[in-house]
Amino acid sequence: MRAADLVEPYPTVGIDDNAMDAARLMAEERLVGVIVMTADGRPYAVLPGSQLLRFSVPRYIQADPTLARVVDERHADLMCARLADQKVRDVLPDEGPVPAVVHPGATAMEIAALMARSHTPLVAVYDGSAYLGAITASGLLRRLLAAG
Amino acid sequence: MRAADLVEPYPTVGIDDNAMDAARLMAEERLVGVIVMTADGRPYAVLPGSQLLRFSVPRYIQADPTLARVVDERHADLMCARLADQKVRDVLPDEGPVPAVVHPGATAMEIAALMARSHTPLVAVYDGSAYLGAITASGLLRRLLAAG
Repeated sequence: MRAADLVEPYPTVGIDDNAMDAARLMAEERLVGVIVMTADGRPYAVLPGSQLLRFSVPRYIQADPTLARVVDERHADLMCARLADQKVRDVLPDEGPVPAVVHPGATAMEIAALMARSHTPLVAVYDGSAYLGAITASGLLRRLLAAG
Repeated sequence: MRAADLVEPYPTVGIDDNAMDAARLMAEERLVGVIVMTADGRPYAVLPGSQLLRFSVPRYIQADPTLARVVDERHADLMCARLADQKVRDVLPDEGPVPAVVHPGATAMEIAALMARSHTPLVAVYDGSAYLGAITASGLLRRLLAAG
């Protein structure tokens, strides 16, 4: 059981797209995250929904979430305006992008170890020239349980 | 927009259930994670699929994933056997459970800040006596975009 057998079509966003486009994609398709592509079509990073949400929250509230109770009104407006104001590249993790890309020959166990180590529910499959899709943690579990 | 308005029914597992039950639930319902409940019905932690997968991988391969290429055969059997051998409490993060529980009055912004800080795509809603369900990152984004 290799990445080539496990991969499924999975939506992407461009690194220079608006962060709101990524938010809309995750919201509409109920995705746990999206694959971020470079301008020349390489998968660059995984952007989890939890990471994207971080950039919808003003910095002083990230530092002290209890302040979020005080600014109760119009949270949704504020949060959407913040996302619309940033590019996807601006909402990738400070500590560098999640390097969640595997080649088609990666084994189920390599993929599981990568998801665990990088705390990502999603890895992209790339053969060196084309993006083939992605593998989700729940998809991997489904295939393991069917085969195990 | 408060947790009480955002919460949806969401599956749980007991902390003393078999880890394979959690795996099966995530696989069948395509979940990003499950809510782990104490024996007396309190939400205790979020168990993401990526975390669960960590415990399907032998320790020496977690330390050096390139070894996963060597033990190629029967990965699925090995990984399922490891999960079936552990309880949910054994596969929670070493550094303590993800404290992803909010009260029904938590604001959208508090929830987003919590998901971002704890890198979890899921929070449980608990009113002090009953588990009300959970909020996912994609669900929160959907409601924000509809309202913003």
